[in-house]
Amino acid sequence: MKAVWLEDGQLKLRHSIPVPDPPDGEALVRVTRAGICNTDVELARGYYPYTGVLGHEFVGVVDRGPAELQGRRVVGEINAVCGRCDACRAGRRTHCERRTVLGIVNRNGAFAEFLTLPVENLHPIPDAVPDDAAVFVEPLAAALEIQEQVPITPADRVLVIGDGKLGQLVAQTLALTGCQLCVVGRYGPKRALLEARAIRVIGEDELQAGGFDVAVECTGNHLGFGAAVKALRPRGTLVMKSTYADTLTFNASTIVVNELTLIGSRCGPFPKAISLLAHRAVDVAPLVQARYSLDRALDAFDHAQRPGTLKVLFALA
Amino acid sequence: MKAVWLEDGQLKLRHSIPVPDPPDGEALVRVTRAGICNTDVELARGYYPYTGVLGHEFVGVVDRGPAELQGRRVVGEINAVCGRCDACRAGRRTHCERRTVLGIVNRNGAFAEFLTLPVENLHPIPDAVPDDAAVFVEPLAAALEIQEQVPITPADRVLVIGDGKLGQLVAQTLALTGCQLCVVGRYGPKRALLEARAIRVIGEDELQAGGFDVAVECTGNHLGFGAAVKALRPRGTLVMKSTYADTLTFNASTIVVNELTLIGSRCGPFPKAISLLAHRAVDVAPLVQARYSLDRALDAFDHAQRPGTLKVLFALA
Repeated sequence: MKAVWLEDGQLKLRHSIPVPDPPDGEALVRVTRAGICNTDVELARGYYPYTGVLGHEFVGVVDRGPAELQGRRVVGEINAVCGRCDACRAGRRTHCERRTVLGIVNRNGAFAEFLTLPVENLHPIPDAVPDDAAVFVEPLAAALEIQEQVPITPADRVLVIGDGKLGQLVAQTLALTGCQLCVVGRYGPKRALLEARAIRVIGEDELQAGGFDVAVECTGNHLGFGAAVKALRPRGTLVMKSTYADTLTFNASTIVVNELTLIGSRCGPFPKAISLLAHRAVDVAPLVQARYSLDRALDAFDHAQRPGTLKVLFALA
Repeated sequence: MKAVWLEDGQLKLRHSIPVPDPPDGEALVRVTRAGICNTDVELARGYYPYTGVLGHEFVGVVDRGPAELQGRRVVGEINAVCGRCDACRAGRRTHCERRTVLGIVNRNGAFAEFLTLPVENLHPIPDAVPDDAAVFVEPLAAALEIQEQVPITPADRVLVIGDGKLGQLVAQTLALTGCQLCVVGRYGPKRALLEARAIRVIGEDELQAGGFDVAVECTGNHLGFGAAVKALRPRGTLVMKSTYADTLTFNASTIVVNELTLIGSRCGPFPKAISLLAHRAVDVAPLVQARYSLDRALDAFDHAQRPGTLKVLFALA
């Protein structure tokens, strides 16, 4: 089969990767859509050690699996876990000490014609959700993880830093809480998308110091982090939603003196993300900016890295 | 009066500072003991801009104040607040936007014969608590702030990084929760003090990665911070208890991937600290390593900065 392969920081399209043979407890899934995420870009730049097929955002059709899933459209949670380690037994399965992670850690990913995942990781997709939307379940679940970690109420003044593809999903999900939401973004189409959903967008120069209870950092750079720290009131909460390729340098005294809380935030609840898409409570269609075949994988990655680009998808037959 | 004065990063003993005249709502306190804290050392090194009398840990006698406090021994909360700003009205008085802070921000401090503080900041000290213990109320309250922010139960594996004067108070207060407590320290007298209270002490090389639910950073340097991050299990909590003179550089991806929570922690509850001292639930006497007169202020600061030194006090007549 065809697959987008990463090795020694080099991305290449390979044509003769064997179709994987699902081990016990796993299913074979034929991929129909896959999305390029910033983590994929960072992996492709060699920021993390990984060799194998890239990609972890996908929707596909079960090709070989248990009868109840056979032929069904599914998305899949990306952490394949042991179920027996301390983290698993404590209910923190996404932090399994022996986990593999689709397209990220020791498990071939979704930029391929086929992938395998444990059956327990798969979630059927309702007919009402088209493939181009279902492929957003993984990043949408990650956006929803914020609300699993920090209770957000209508009284809360919440700031999202960044209007990129992650910031867009985070803002759309936070808007559903009824909180006093504000996104830091720039003029242009991304801002227009948010404003079309009645989400307030301001420039960074308009940011009121100390004016927010919660700030969500979605830029992945130290400027965004610094802006978030500055925007928070004392005892406010900073959610770190981005992966950071580089080390972060900051004035720790501000965090101590203002008694800020920082929370790292990663994978989230798939069922809730699927439900939001099925009920059209969020709209991901405007975020799709291009569809590529696997044959044009390198072009797709170039496109995904152009400034201002939202979601680039792989569309498979 | 005599006072230890900081100006342009230079510490000097001044002999003719006027005795302060307490404004409305404030009392004049004659200082009997004052303690040197790491924050004082950092201020004296010029790490923060401050001009005035240093010192914020003290016990004294009310020289001029309301009848019910006149002549009584008192300690004092260090943040003098407006009561009207957003932070005050939200109940976060230690974060008052217009606060002055004793010996730290725009308010002359405790290394002097007299100081003034708002009457509402003063707490009488029971006779059972001698001056040499009462002078620890402020740092002890700061140690107790941890438990105000993070619920600690006997099931929690809690790590304290650092066995200095802050680490000793943090460890003694955490031990009272019945948690599974462990302190990272070195062989020597400080370790012996902890072990004498049945608190387990290990070397940093014995630290088990991912073995702790909560870690409290009490060293104020990036090595301690890094050790704390490494020691925490996924979704663990890192309490930042130290002030940090320098910026902190760290791998932010670890915080995101492991979904750690970081909490800055500052001033805490005085009544609880006084109660613990009155009931001898903590023992601060062994932490006092020297007493100096104000006349020997520079010697006292030299002593406080010697490696391994615990608490150095000023003892006034």
